[in-house]
Amino acid sequence: MLNNFFNPRAIAVIGASREKGKIGGSILANILKYGYRGRVYPVNPKSKKIQGLRAYPSVLDISATVDLAMIVVPSAIVAPVLAECGKKKIKYAVIITAGFREVGGEGVKMENEIKEIAAKFNIKILGPNCLGFLDSVSRLNASFADGMIQSGRVAFLSQSGAIATAMLDWAGKNNLGFSRFISLGNKAGITENEILDFLINDKNTDVVLGYLEGISAGREFMSIASRLTQKKPFILVKAGKSDEAQRAISSHTGSLAGADAIIDAALKQCGVTRAESLEELFGYARVFSTAPRLAGNNIAVVVNAGGVGVMTTDAVAGSGLKLAKLSPRTTTVLKLKLPATANIHNPIDVVGDARADRYEIALSAVLSDKNVDGAIVILTPQTVTEVEKTAAVIVRLNKRYRKPLVASFVGGERVEKGIQILNRGGVVNYLFPEDAVKALDAFWKSEEERGKRKTLNIKTLKQTTLKQKKDNQVDFKEMEGLMRKYGITMVRSELAESLDGVLAVARKVGYPVVMKVVASKLVHKTDVGGVLVNLKDENEVKNGYKKLAPVLRKFAGAPAGAGQAKVLIQPMIKGAKEIIIGMKCDPQFGPTLMFGLGGIYVEILKDVVFRVAPINKKEALKLVGEIKAVKLLQGARGEKAADIDAIAEIIVRLGDLALAQPEIQEIDINPAMVFGRGKGVKVVDARIITN
Amino acid sequence: MLNNFFNPRAIAVIGASREKGKIGGSILANILKYGYRGRVYPVNPKSKKIQGLRAYPSVLDISATVDLAMIVVPSAIVAPVLAECGKKKIKYAVIITAGFREVGGEGVKMENEIKEIAAKFNIKILGPNCLGFLDSVSRLNASFADGMIQSGRVAFLSQSGAIATAMLDWAGKNNLGFSRFISLGNKAGITENEILDFLINDKNTDVVLGYLEGISAGREFMSIASRLTQKKPFILVKAGKSDEAQRAISSHTGSLAGADAIIDAALKQCGVTRAESLEELFGYARVFSTAPRLAGNNIAVVVNAGGVGVMTTDAVAGSGLKLAKLSPRTTTVLKLKLPATANIHNPIDVVGDARADRYEIALSAVLSDKNVDGAIVILTPQTVTEVEKTAAVIVRLNKRYRKPLVASFVGGERVEKGIQILNRGGVVNYLFPEDAVKALDAFWKSEEERGKRKTLNIKTLKQTTLKQKKDNQVDFKEMEGLMRKYGITMVRSELAESLDGVLAVARKVGYPVVMKVVASKLVHKTDVGGVLVNLKDENEVKNGYKKLAPVLRKFAGAPAGAGQAKVLIQPMIKGAKEIIIGMKCDPQFGPTLMFGLGGIYVEILKDVVFRVAPINKKEALKLVGEIKAVKLLQGARGEKAADIDAIAEIIVRLGDLALAQPEIQEIDINPAMVFGRGKGVKVVDARIITN
Repeated sequence: MLNNFFNPRAIAVIGASREKGKIGGSILANILKYGYRGRVYPVNPKSKKIQGLRAYPSVLDISATVDLAMIVVPSAIVAPVLAECGKKKIKYAVIITAGFREVGGEGVKMENEIKEIAAKFNIKILGPNCLGFLDSVSRLNASFADGMIQSGRVAFLSQSGAIATAMLDWAGKNNLGFSRFISLGNKAGITENEILDFLINDKNTDVVLGYLEGISAGREFMSIASRLTQKKPFILVKAGKSDEAQRAISSHTGSLAGADAIIDAALKQCGVTRAESLEELFGYARVFSTAPRLAGNNIAVVVNAGGVGVMTTDAVAGSGLKLAKLSPRTTTVLKLKLPATANIHNPIDVVGDARADRYEIALSAVLSDKNVDGAIVILTPQTVTEVEKTAAVIVRLNKRYRKPLVASFVGGERVEKGIQILNRGGVVNYLFPEDAVKALDAFWKSEEERGKRKTLNIKTLKQTTLKQKKDNQVDFKEMEGLMRKYGITMVRSELAESLDGVLAVARKVGYPVVMKVVASKLVHKTDVGGVLVNLKDENEVKNGYKKLAPVLRKFAGAPAGAGQAKVLIQPMIKGAKEIIIGMKCDPQFGPTLMFGLGGIYVEILKDVVFRVAPINKKEALKLVGEIKAVKLLQGARGEKAADIDAIAEIIVRLGDLALAQPEIQEIDINPAMVFGRGKGVKVVDARIITN
Repeated sequence: MLNNFFNPRAIAVIGASREKGKIGGSILANILKYGYRGRVYPVNPKSKKIQGLRAYPSVLDISATVDLAMIVVPSAIVAPVLAECGKKKIKYAVIITAGFREVGGEGVKMENEIKEIAAKFNIKILGPNCLGFLDSVSRLNASFADGMIQSGRVAFLSQSGAIATAMLDWAGKNNLGFSRFISLGNKAGITENEILDFLINDKNTDVVLGYLEGISAGREFMSIASRLTQKKPFILVKAGKSDEAQRAISSHTGSLAGADAIIDAALKQCGVTRAESLEELFGYARVFSTAPRLAGNNIAVVVNAGGVGVMTTDAVAGSGLKLAKLSPRTTTVLKLKLPATANIHNPIDVVGDARADRYEIALSAVLSDKNVDGAIVILTPQTVTEVEKTAAVIVRLNKRYRKPLVASFVGGERVEKGIQILNRGGVVNYLFPEDAVKALDAFWKSEEERGKRKTLNIKTLKQTTLKQKKDNQVDFKEMEGLMRKYGITMVRSELAESLDGVLAVARKVGYPVVMKVVASKLVHKTDVGGVLVNLKDENEVKNGYKKLAPVLRKFAGAPAGAGQAKVLIQPMIKGAKEIIIGMKCDPQFGPTLMFGLGGIYVEILKDVVFRVAPINKKEALKLVGEIKAVKLLQGARGEKAADIDAIAEIIVRLGDLALAQPEIQEIDINPAMVFGRGKGVKVVDARIITN
């Protein structure tokens, strides 16, 4: 779809200027400078000729077909200019101009106007308030960023123009090449989803990097990202984790940040590698894009100093990587060829007086060992260390073996030239060994799952409102019925309206019983003293009813109305564990499921896990396994194992229920009781909130 | 004490060589090269003159006084050479030679021999197997490291020669200067403790950095470090966190790594800033050594792009720092002087088209705001950004205001010259904003506590054996008495040896009761079915006794011996919370206290905290507050608050007990029951293991 966008046959630069210091001048110059082969038409009513090209008063004056318009005019006239593009049947426009939604007020109105025009004429717009884009395949710099991207197989999309600029400058220095490089701006037209969708089958792109502050359409994003990550790694910084940052975001682009735990779950579900900082994003990018596939997590470490070996081992131990167990053959070779002072076990220490030859012996041995999937080589500049020669050896071996090999030359001036040799030779060097481990670990996690990933069957739902209403609670009996329909069973629950009724029900249910006040306006029953447990006989029920009387009066509602307060009687359950299962309609990702153990585990230890619905049984089982206290369910301390299978089943069904009934905003099963293996789960209390 | 070591009046270089490529040659050349003013005597029986100086066959041939001997002879003759130094009454020796304890076997023997000679002649030795040391005060490079340290106020000590070399190289590039720079080697004589003790009052040192794999004498270290950190920051990498790394360490220096959680607690107790990686060590060093004091944690952030503002805000939110709330005056100034598009709230965004003047306006305003304690300035290279001019502005403002100001110029070539200007001007630049936040956060944590720190009253105990015996369990009654002596009360506990005895005791104690088998060889009572709880009447006790019979038989011991199995009867306790308090004699740090909530909190959630004994009440209260589930004790979910004060009291006393009875290796109070506030704690079960 976006092929003609990234490789337009002709471009009109509306607002082109002869002054290259101006944005309208620098964009035109950039387009002309790097070998773009299409036609270029400057548009500016005040000039006849700009930067050696004939200029046109309006796009309508250009007779040839134009695929892409670059719009660099003042914000007030963007709308009419865009309308002219429509009339000219231009399909794509990049609106560089700022002063729209990001400034609020009048800007929001203008942005809406632009969107209407784009929709009317079927123009796809990038921006407004963006840097533009760069494309090394079509040799096009359609932006006002200085310089050109190196040719490479990484695509980068950024919601922040400045982070794009910094990345561009950093990449130049660190030998990172790009296929496409896109500044998204306000995302009034083309969003990350459209670009990611294009990148799935883009033959010029092997790795996708992104910086996003908000995700435009969460469910669509997940579906697209899940298809993308089956083919190539997608590393994303999703900024705005903290409340403070979310306020900063809303003041600068007005996009919605979203609860971070849910974002984290959603990204994991669709196989996205989340980078937590720019340092990680930049650092991961290099190894992901240059190293061959990592077939396993067995890593060999070669050092010339025990101390850095220890530090690296600590870092490996804290990651998903393992120190490879070298084959006997490798150990024999190392023993034979390295001096007696060397440590021939992984991490291999070629010792402080090692020259390049010892590095070559050790690296050749481990890289040809079938027990080794990748290697990290670390060098400290000691007296006889051959920094440059060793770098050259590493470059050579990296080309010979099809296994990831990354380096960390630790120091300052003495290692500088070695690092340059590595960089030029396509070996990624990290300033510190820990960063090398971290990047290789992220790479492994991305590679490990690739083959197992499936397209998420996540349909886009109608947009939900951001502000969720809290008082539209579904009536108890209706709720029970709805849950039953989805195979979620409640503990036997009977309602009564008088003491006699309560006593009759209690006899039927069997002692001991639990009594709860239910009323449409009553949400937190326990807080108002509306719950009594373990009532053993008629006497205790009678006393209990007296205690509940004031609560019943308080929430009485209309005398005979539907909202009238009633008493719910349930049998007292023992020998089961409390769990909580929830569903909340997230404004970005739609129905999202939550699971945790009841009581303090959720409230104090915050031991909860999330998934965007729907999920299948396998995924639900994995979800349950992710809580920290899962051993309690698996049967720790001599207790019996709980029916984890039944928990997973309920989670799956709750997701189905939420998707089938989009008016439901929130379901809170709190608590349910899980019995021993094969004995199932029973819901004790729940509430459903609709919009 | 070490004054003449770091500034010797005369040095003998034993094993000096005319070839500068050899270690013995490079050391002599280094000593002569950088302005050291003392006398230098090469010692080498094969030469008359070395590097222009008269050479001596032996130190005994030198007639003048010699303070320091540098020993660079083969390992086999180090011992006789050292003995000659002794006869010459040389007080200090640096043994560069390797091949001692670190190679095992014969090397260990040779190192012991050296230690004996050093003790006999009262020589303090650094090494063996070290790089030597450098001292910018005496302009002495007494090492075989290339180049000289820049003059500065940071002291560095390293157990790894290679990490020292890497640091040296890195520091040169990053403008970090040192007072003393010491490679510790095998620590056969001078250890970190002796050097740290010297640095406490060293007027040339403001900040201490260290890399250690093992800590030589933990209790002495804590006492010295606690005095040091009252005066200056001490940043330490203690490598060998993981089991894997500990194996690597033992294979390369044979030092003892120790359980990491205890090391972590010990370092915190004495105010040491622990760096988790070389990157942190190197990164912290710069801001700690150059920035003025940080009076509070209110940080202003100035950026030229929303995106990096968001990322920085996320990093600040995850740290101990806060975004400063700017004073109304500052906000007014910013509103007046910055363009309308700027964000005048913290993080302050001077916007993408900012030149140096806007940075100057924003930084001047925040640095003169009394609500701001320090600032981070971030620059991304955008079209009109004045990188170098902005760097110069930052350098100027950093000199004018006495508040920490750090920078992060993010990019590649376009920011390179700016970073150089910052570096030369004494402003620390971090490659990424997150690193700037992390370093400032560590700085704040170090500064915040400085005034509050006290010298730890931790006496050195006799060395404990590493291998702890498991079967020397103290008899129950003796243990109870010992605890009582320290004011730790147990639940009423009576022993009986027959069913009749049990029934009689149960009547006295009052139903319901608990029955437990106790026997000297029985450690885990529950695992063998030796514990029965909540026995409500005589009948249940009779049945219980039958159930315990096989356990009693199994652990019967000698028919009438002291180890005979008995039944312990206690009242059943309800309405209290289970806690665990432990003491273990750590091989490095001696008696170490542990606290956690009983059951799953310790076993599954690993929610435990440590302190080295003794600790006072205040510290014990802080310790209890550090468990994740502390809210459970403070009274969450409507439950009553527990008697935290009583818990703290027991922890203090347990520490006192352990220190007074050094034969005790381990005390395990598991569980104790804590009642409501003011109601105290009662120990239900405990065991004491001696050596």
